[in-house]
Amino acid sequence: MSSTHRYTLTISCPDRAGIIAAVSGFIAQHGGFIVEASYHTEQEASRFFMRQEIRADSLPFDANEFRHRFAPLAQEFGMDWQLADSAQKKRLVILVSKQDHCLNDLLHRWRSGELQVDIPCVISNHEDLRSFVEWHGIPFVHIDMQDKAAAFELIAARFEQYRGDCMVLARFMQILPPALCRRFPGRVINIHHSFLPSFVGAKPYHQAYLRGVKLIGATCHYVTEELDAGPIIEQDTVRIDHGDTVDDLVRYGRDIEKTVLSRGLRYHVEDRVLVCGNKTIVFR
Amino acid sequence: MSSTHRYTLTISCPDRAGIIAAVSGFIAQHGGFIVEASYHTEQEASRFFMRQEIRADSLPFDANEFRHRFAPLAQEFGMDWQLADSAQKKRLVILVSKQDHCLNDLLHRWRSGELQVDIPCVISNHEDLRSFVEWHGIPFVHIDMQDKAAAFELIAARFEQYRGDCMVLARFMQILPPALCRRFPGRVINIHHSFLPSFVGAKPYHQAYLRGVKLIGATCHYVTEELDAGPIIEQDTVRIDHGDTVDDLVRYGRDIEKTVLSRGLRYHVEDRVLVCGNKTIVFR
Amino acid sequence: MSSTHRYTLTISCPDRAGIIAAVSGFIAQHGGFIVEASYHTEQEASRFFMRQEIRADSLPFDANEFRHRFAPLAQEFGMDWQLADSAQKKRLVILVSKQDHCLNDLLHRWRSGELQVDIPCVISNHEDLRSFVEWHGIPFVHIDMQDKAAAFELIAARFEQYRGDCMVLARFMQILPPALCRRFPGRVINIHHSFLPSFVGAKPYHQAYLRGVKLIGATCHYVTEELDAGPIIEQDTVRIDHGDTVDDLVRYGRDIEKTVLSRGLRYHVEDRVLVCGNKTIVFR
Amino acid sequence: MSSTHRYTLTISCPDRAGIIAAVSGFIAQHGGFIVEASYHTEQEASRFFMRQEIRADSLPFDANEFRHRFAPLAQEFGMDWQLADSAQKKRLVILVSKQDHCLNDLLHRWRSGELQVDIPCVISNHEDLRSFVEWHGIPFVHIDMQDKAAAFELIAARFEQYRGDCMVLARFMQILPPALCRRFPGRVINIHHSFLPSFVGAKPYHQAYLRGVKLIGATCHYVTEELDAGPIIEQDTVRIDHGDTVDDLVRYGRDIEKTVLSRGLRYHVEDRVLVCGNKTIVFR
Repeated sequence: MSSTHRYTLTISCPDRAGIIAAVSGFIAQHGGFIVEASYHTEQEASRFFMRQEIRADSLPFDANEFRHRFAPLAQEFGMDWQLADSAQKKRLVILVSKQDHCLNDLLHRWRSGELQVDIPCVISNHEDLRSFVEWHGIPFVHIDMQDKAAAFELIAARFEQYRGDCMVLARFMQILPPALCRRFPGRVINIHHSFLPSFVGAKPYHQAYLRGVKLIGATCHYVTEELDAGPIIEQDTVRIDHGDTVDDLVRYGRDIEKTVLSRGLRYHVEDRVLVCGNKTIVFR
Repeated sequence: MSSTHRYTLTISCPDRAGIIAAVSGFIAQHGGFIVEASYHTEQEASRFFMRQEIRADSLPFDANEFRHRFAPLAQEFGMDWQLADSAQKKRLVILVSKQDHCLNDLLHRWRSGELQVDIPCVISNHEDLRSFVEWHGIPFVHIDMQDKAAAFELIAARFEQYRGDCMVLARFMQILPPALCRRFPGRVINIHHSFLPSFVGAKPYHQAYLRGVKLIGATCHYVTEELDAGPIIEQDTVRIDHGDTVDDLVRYGRDIEKTVLSRGLRYHVEDRVLVCGNKTIVFR
Repeated sequence: MSSTHRYTLTISCPDRAGIIAAVSGFIAQHGGFIVEASYHTEQEASRFFMRQEIRADSLPFDANEFRHRFAPLAQEFGMDWQLADSAQKKRLVILVSKQDHCLNDLLHRWRSGELQVDIPCVISNHEDLRSFVEWHGIPFVHIDMQDKAAAFELIAARFEQYRGDCMVLARFMQILPPALCRRFPGRVINIHHSFLPSFVGAKPYHQAYLRGVKLIGATCHYVTEELDAGPIIEQDTVRIDHGDTVDDLVRYGRDIEKTVLSRGLRYHVEDRVLVCGNKTIVFR
Repeated sequence: MSSTHRYTLTISCPDRAGIIAAVSGFIAQHGGFIVEASYHTEQEASRFFMRQEIRADSLPFDANEFRHRFAPLAQEFGMDWQLADSAQKKRLVILVSKQDHCLNDLLHRWRSGELQVDIPCVISNHEDLRSFVEWHGIPFVHIDMQDKAAAFELIAARFEQYRGDCMVLARFMQILPPALCRRFPGRVINIHHSFLPSFVGAKPYHQAYLRGVKLIGATCHYVTEELDAGPIIEQDTVRIDHGDTVDDLVRYGRDIEKTVLSRGLRYHVEDRVLVCGNKTIVFR
């Protein structure tokens, strides 16, 4: 993630000849300097996806003017598109329970400048992590989960109040109600502690242990109404063996969970993830 | 796999103190030189597993005399045990269909001396691979699958006629009937082209493609009556991305399949795999 | 590697704004349908690299006419470029010694259609692999290495006589003389059995064993005059441990060597590798 | 790392028949329950290595009595040996500079109970990390490096004053003087940010970038007088590609460094690492 001021243009549209020429022609015509360019055609869906990173200082206008001038071309090709401005950091609201390995990892990446986002608040159903979060100067919001419906209403309200762009379930251990999933499509990211679609739901490490698999994994995905079934952003696995207990699996799992979440989150934050049906295109 | 003459003693028994002392005491008392020793306790089952490789020339007697003398101690501890003699190569009967990447890989390991087994015959439901197999000087048995029941009877008969120790389904693409699975427990090894328990059954690469996973895998396991549910010996995964078609997955898959099968098979052939319920202990 | 008829345009030129627009504009203007497009800027060298795969049937002319029409644009931007035609398979001449794991792997990929090349001949300084090569219907050329200078002259002569595009040193175990390296720049590919730059030269597995490393690797690279120092195309590593002997390292190494060579070779054959100084850009 | 009270017996001695029998006989004779047992023979050195974890409550005496009774047997076999008591946590003194990814990782593992050690102090040549360390309730010792000789004297003094068992160079970025290396043999652990023996010394990521390698790595090793040449405990690699800048390599590197250091450190802390010449036996 370079610190240069950039615009990132992401597009999806029906596939046909001439799209790259039209878009790169538009950029070139205004002197735009493309830093990174990626393309993909999803054959079954006959849909084209592209992502362009452009140096902001190479263009004679700002992001809004870019959007204004680009709109006609986008309409001509039937594009779903957006232009992100690297000067506008995304705002991540992180939800945690008691386990803090993912939170610890994300906050370190944030305070070291590796993860260029704003973290307006951390929300938890336990008080345990208040001191650690507040040491970072980040507001810590405790939510009582006794009344689940009310609790999730409050979470949604805080997310909006803090103008969150993305809600990160960093081992939150609570299942979001369908209504909440529908309310923020493509904006809620979860880390599941198995290599999906294996071991959906509760206690995946126990499930893995009982099945006798030789590797375990973790999956970072967008949350949808169906549990652990949303579009997968990133996954990875790690080797275990017969000598490992469930506790060992949990320990190995923590390392893979935080790695996979941080990678998936980086892709999302850098506008590298485009969704097509229940799959993702990740322009790494 | 060293070429030195060795005995491999594998034991499983109820866990208690003193087992290692008793067994290593027995070996030491006869001057036995232990080349490799591995131990494991399966906590839930309260069961102990061990494997010892002993240099044959360090003992004053042969394998049968070893078995004779060891029997009382084995009985005292309630052991399931066996002594394998590296001079007696295991006999692998390989079953294939048309896809030959696993067969090609196994035959190369065999002819280069890496896989120290005998291959008395290769069985197939197609004629395609006859010439390749026969070039190796290995009998090729073609079986017509029109009448499945009869075909599987014939396969079992050939396996026994050729005194097979282990039946290897090297992408055989046919589901073994339950009776056959029961007849050779722990002696039939399959390579499944997914990271089990994900994508059981047919067309796992298509299933993986549709689910949008970010890694695909392969699983080497013992065949049991329940499809793709037997004890797992070895697994591995490989990274894919959105640009990969189903054909690409199949291509990547071939490499991971042959690697996983050859590793699992080596563990089995070297008596490194002990089964406990539906799990395996693999003393690598 | 799809079987559709495609043209692959690879370009490197000084970096500046408008290159993508110019090239994609040219293609679009003739109705060309881009199947895959990749771009990269090498910052230090201020040099731009691109690769486009275009469906041949989407263009109203053939490869030669494409080259003719594209030349002026290429000149304007100072491009080094070439257009490969998938209908013209590359011709690989494979050099081997006695170890055949890479050869066995490559020939299988070739006969299964995975590696879409022609193999006009296999050259070896030993007779051991003649029968295996000839079973494939491929001429086997034995070269006596007694007089090294004469032998390498003969190798070069055979390579040219068989109109080889690429010379593959598939564990050839002989060091090519500088003159030969200079004669076929970017056309000789070697697999070195270490994770370069560690363990250059002879017996890398012994070196690795003595140093006590915890992973070993293999490197596929273009051959240049300096031993094991040419541009790296592909590398990979595999975990070992203290229980592994040098023989075990050699065994693990074979698997990683053949995988890395086959991947690197595929990238080369599909025109995915562009060289920049002593580095490669690999558009996977 | 189980929380049960255990004794860990580690032994190295000249190889001969009967060692396992003698040691396991001794343990069994006192009713000792072996939780984990590992053996290895280093062929070249003709030296035998073993590690036994024994449940403390299965023995009728304490660690000192164990040592007293075991001594004669140890002498008979010429053993180098030690008995570690899990009730006596090892004391790690961590040295850091400004980069805190390894420190952040280690302190999290410590405060979550995963890494069962005491951390009596953190030493740094910069003040930057004081607040973070002190939030953990750990003393932070700042050392001025202007006068290097004096500084290293002070470091050694603090290490001894805080009764450190192990000095961890968690990206300390300063080369320890030979005298200090000699003073604490096998007790100073470093994380080097390359896959040794490649890219010894300064700026390994720049070296890797210039060489154009396709994977980068990290190495956890014991510090000896020769720079980056001590016995390797753990290593790992991660894939990069041509699109990655030196900054990207540094970013990927941080993840691999902290993972490799934490693994190597865990092996050391759990007495899983035995040194043989310049190599390690790691009983994982």
